[in-house]
Amino acid sequence: MKQLLVIGIGAGNPDYITMQAVKALNQVDVFFLMDKGQSKDKLIDLRREICDRYITDPDYRFAEAHCPERERGDVDYTSAVVDLNQAKQQTFERMINEELSDGQCGGFLVWGDPALYDSTVRILQSILAESRCEFEFEVIPGITSVQALAAQHKVPLNTIGRSIEITTGRRLAAGKVSDSDSLVVMLDAEDSYHHVADPQTQIYWGAYLGTPDEILISGKLGEVADEIERVRKAARAEHGWIMDTYLLRKP
Amino acid sequence: MKQLLVIGIGAGNPDYITMQAVKALNQVDVFFLMDKGQSKDKLIDLRREICDRYITDPDYRFAEAHCPERERGDVDYTSAVVDLNQAKQQTFERMINEELSDGQCGGFLVWGDPALYDSTVRILQSILAESRCEFEFEVIPGITSVQALAAQHKVPLNTIGRSIEITTGRRLAAGKVSDSDSLVVMLDAEDSYHHVADPQTQIYWGAYLGTPDEILISGKLGEVADEIERVRKAARAEHGWIMDTYLLRKP
Repeated sequence: MKQLLVIGIGAGNPDYITMQAVKALNQVDVFFLMDKGQSKDKLIDLRREICDRYITDPDYRFAEAHCPERERGDVDYTSAVVDLNQAKQQTFERMINEELSDGQCGGFLVWGDPALYDSTVRILQSILAESRCEFEFEVIPGITSVQALAAQHKVPLNTIGRSIEITTGRRLAAGKVSDSDSLVVMLDAEDSYHHVADPQTQIYWGAYLGTPDEILISGKLGEVADEIERVRKAARAEHGWIMDTYLLRKP
Repeated sequence: MKQLLVIGIGAGNPDYITMQAVKALNQVDVFFLMDKGQSKDKLIDLRREICDRYITDPDYRFAEAHCPERERGDVDYTSAVVDLNQAKQQTFERMINEELSDGQCGGFLVWGDPALYDSTVRILQSILAESRCEFEFEVIPGITSVQALAAQHKVPLNTIGRSIEITTGRRLAAGKVSDSDSLVVMLDAEDSYHHVADPQTQIYWGAYLGTPDEILISGKLGEVADEIERVRKAARAEHGWIMDTYLLRKP
């Protein structure tokens, strides 16, 4: 039997890695890396750095595959992601079949936590459901950018006894959010915080969380929204990519 | 200046601790432990075990204080928690003033992540806002029971492009939840999953997550709700306490 480990390596800071993840890294024979193009090279580098730092026996290797791109523009988001995941699934199947022998252990290094806005677990369950490869797998949780955001701003995610909604920039822009007083927004490529009506809403924003490039801005939306947009645009131009997240708290 | 570290130690499994938390533990001179009475002794023991395991220089000590209890029964939940936090705040102020010298580092060991349904950060911010003690503090995120739940059941928390609501058993029972297709319920003392109308809803339930006593049950609510109630009741009787959480996914 082949074994797969889906390892959450945390968001940004290599010290976010857990002892459980370190033990898992040391079991892996082959790491599957999905190349997302030049702009995400830094993320691949961080994965290699984590392996260098925490694996004691250097008897492991990397298998790289090109990661298909999601179709952008005038297409339905969910079906574009479903298409992307089917293409990814074929890549996963090929890597598991060709790069891994029986008795070996393959590892996926997932930014943040595999349970939050990541498709690896869903794809592996789908491969098993369709009986397309045989393997066992385990999931190792990791610190998400949401947790890094709250820690760096020194704020709780929830108010007393209330709920938290974790959602996407796309949903915020479309008005598809609940009335929760604590809203965490991820995957926002379009400055969707401008869609929030109440300028008294508090925003806790962070980019490149946990890395040396980290940027934190907080304040009332009416006072800091334009600053965030400006800083975000400049940072994206400088680095070639941006990963940011924010907490919105109603007044 | 005094320094305080609010350290998330993860949920249950000592291997959930991060490298950042291990480094933080090794900076602490005095750990503040809040005694919550006999039923929570196991949680105090786990904190001591984590210190034993990960601290290399044994030159640290514990300062224990009795943790005030939240008033239960026929009282408003939020104001009961506010009262409790005021009592806790006085205890924190006394410990910081009496147990810690200038230049020393005090540590709070928080189950899970300090940002999620924990009052330590809120109380420290309140002490600083009222200028009642002088200190600097940092927050170290930790793996929550929500992440342990998803990892152990090998499911993502979200469906593609959709939101997640994290809420309490109390709010679920009161019908105060959004229409999110992924609902994570914490702090449920009353089997509130019985309030979910659709028996086709999928539940992923876990208790004592990450510990040797871990229990996992999943299935359609119509088929497993009674089993969960029975197992939960028996486990609570056996251990004297229970900590459980679950994910509800709409069909």
